[in-house]
Amino acid sequence: MYGHQAIRNMSPAYPQFFRAAEGALITDVDGNEYVDLMCSWGPIVLGHRDPVVTQAVREQMEKGDCLDGPGPVLVDLAEALVDAIDDADWILFGKNGTDATTACLTIARAHTSRAVVLVARGVYHGAAPWCSPVPAGTLPSDRAAMGYFEYNDQADFDRAVEAAGSDLAGVMLTPFRHVEGEDQELVDVEFARHVRRRCDELDALLILDDVRCGFRFAHGGSWEPIGVSSDLSAWSKAIANGYPLAAVTGRESLRDAASAVFLTGSFWMNSTPMAAALATIRRLDAIDGVSLMQRAGARLRAGVLTQAADSGLTIAYTGPDVMPYMTFAGDVHHERMTRFAEAALASGVYLHPKHNWFMSCAMDDAVIDRALRATEQAFAAVRRHFGPR
Amino acid sequence: MYGHQAIRNMSPAYPQFFRAAEGALITDVDGNEYVDLMCSWGPIVLGHRDPVVTQAVREQMEKGDCLDGPGPVLVDLAEALVDAIDDADWILFGKNGTDATTACLTIARAHTSRAVVLVARGVYHGAAPWCSPVPAGTLPSDRAAMGYFEYNDQADFDRAVEAAGSDLAGVMLTPFRHVEGEDQELVDVEFARHVRRRCDELDALLILDDVRCGFRFAHGGSWEPIGVSSDLSAWSKAIANGYPLAAVTGRESLRDAASAVFLTGSFWMNSTPMAAALATIRRLDAIDGVSLMQRAGARLRAGVLTQAADSGLTIAYTGPDVMPYMTFAGDVHHERMTRFAEAALASGVYLHPKHNWFMSCAMDDAVIDRALRATEQAFAAVRRHFGPR
Repeated sequence: MYGHQAIRNMSPAYPQFFRAAEGALITDVDGNEYVDLMCSWGPIVLGHRDPVVTQAVREQMEKGDCLDGPGPVLVDLAEALVDAIDDADWILFGKNGTDATTACLTIARAHTSRAVVLVARGVYHGAAPWCSPVPAGTLPSDRAAMGYFEYNDQADFDRAVEAAGSDLAGVMLTPFRHVEGEDQELVDVEFARHVRRRCDELDALLILDDVRCGFRFAHGGSWEPIGVSSDLSAWSKAIANGYPLAAVTGRESLRDAASAVFLTGSFWMNSTPMAAALATIRRLDAIDGVSLMQRAGARLRAGVLTQAADSGLTIAYTGPDVMPYMTFAGDVHHERMTRFAEAALASGVYLHPKHNWFMSCAMDDAVIDRALRATEQAFAAVRRHFGPR
Repeated sequence: MYGHQAIRNMSPAYPQFFRAAEGALITDVDGNEYVDLMCSWGPIVLGHRDPVVTQAVREQMEKGDCLDGPGPVLVDLAEALVDAIDDADWILFGKNGTDATTACLTIARAHTSRAVVLVARGVYHGAAPWCSPVPAGTLPSDRAAMGYFEYNDQADFDRAVEAAGSDLAGVMLTPFRHVEGEDQELVDVEFARHVRRRCDELDALLILDDVRCGFRFAHGGSWEPIGVSSDLSAWSKAIANGYPLAAVTGRESLRDAASAVFLTGSFWMNSTPMAAALATIRRLDAIDGVSLMQRAGARLRAGVLTQAADSGLTIAYTGPDVMPYMTFAGDVHHERMTRFAEAALASGVYLHPKHNWFMSCAMDDAVIDRALRATEQAFAAVRRHFGPR
């Protein structure tokens, strides 16, 4: 087993294979059912096997999927996304989040005829050699034109800009800082404005990597609520409720650069994931999905914080309510968090001890309360094992 | 529009959007039906909407697709592929052919702790910056560790090996030479053996890029018929009859390197494309799909060559029968081939004037004869316009 879904680094209690899913619930291959707080690591935003999305996929399968050119659904979807996303004047589709972030880099370089792209240190932007968090098999030349700075640190950002000199093509940022095993950090609005201003001054591009947050944090770009615009954005995960699709959106001024670069893949024009995405976006809009997820997330946060306090355990519960993560104070090797996750699993909640969780629209009050009955057991297990603090 | 399915570089007569497909036929958005000699640029190997594959997908959709971990179908598919492919001891899945070729590079570098990978000049290995055929937005550093040689040229290959010195990680080759707009060239068996021998001597890896040919040229690796083995192979396109899937297979000795590199994507564990692949591989095996495609290809080749001779036109019809391509003698700017393709399209055959065509198992004698009635019109149109030669 390989990839982010390999459980080799997790507790042996974790199941590797799953056989079913419905709404907010998943069932492992041995028949154990869990409330799924991971939402398949982000893609499931309406709930597993959402009937509206499934129906759209079935109907598209009757028409055709992988053809010699795209189907009309490409146009419908592109129009829906350009409508939904303020900063989007055009759109390209791919399969992986990494396809989208890599395309943003290439488009920024083609547009500016410059090389350097700055990213925040330790932040995940995909699995290509230029951004892989694991160096095995990658070369220093793969990231020869990357620069690094501390997220939310204006002075360090300015230092990286200075180092790039006249060769700065762009800056890529996630909407907030989510790094595996660390407390999450919302973006400092002043920092975001500062990056926008510096990019404008230097004719460099601001690239928002909305692969993980897009269509969960806000309906449209994740920085629309703070009013900071991007030039290019990368999308994937929640865009099609689990069907394989990624996208790049950009400003009109970047259309020529986006047309000049070479972006293609055998299945990039497949129609069924696009039909799934169109149904997902429309449904999220119709039911105000972001509000539903915020409500679920707020209920989970309140419940977890109460349980921690009642247990006499000190935790940090960070990030937006729709994508929270928790850590125990002083839990340097994640021992408490691992024990917490194991106990939660045994009590019927699937969550990850080192990765942020995700809310979906299928998480009504009853689901959250069911999850909270499991986390209550999990806090008790941590307290039993490690004592209060 | 963008990507290899954009028709902006083709005759205005070509349709951009398609609305249906069945077996060997596709229908554009205006309702025109064509025999599909492009097979969606390779993925369609059993025929469009093959009922066995569609049924497998429907059944898998009832169980689950994008979950927190893979479904049991991953194991079934991995076992079927390792059985079918002589050189495969393990397998990894991805979405794009480029995912697979890039992973082969990374695994080769991780295994050898060397950097240089040699590829044949002008040969397509994907759309990432290290291999993109269009330089816009890419950097010289993206291909700092790539070396180039002429396909089938032992002396030039040896020169490239020499230049790599002690830093040679591997050699990536397609099973035969297929370059857009050029006559195709089967591999020289002595050249293939020479590359294998040199790789063995230098502890470098031979990587077969079987993305385009795999499961069409032979059932299993495309070099099994010539008896030259590879250390790593990249797969995609035909592996799941149009559903988005790619794979890397490799030898046992590379398992550790494959485990050490970081390879992951949000949808890489989705079960429906794996169910489609399992159904595709089993069906290809059951009906001896390669023989069916060879029969169809031989009939097309014989018919086209007869038509060319009868028209007094000199053509080259190159490549294997299952993936043929034709050019007209002296047609430097593809004017004759463009006219041929336009006339074929008007007569009900969809083929590309600069890219190899693909056979599928749905192409029975009646389909090929229908295609030949269109190519007959196309030869007549070329002769009318350009005269004989």
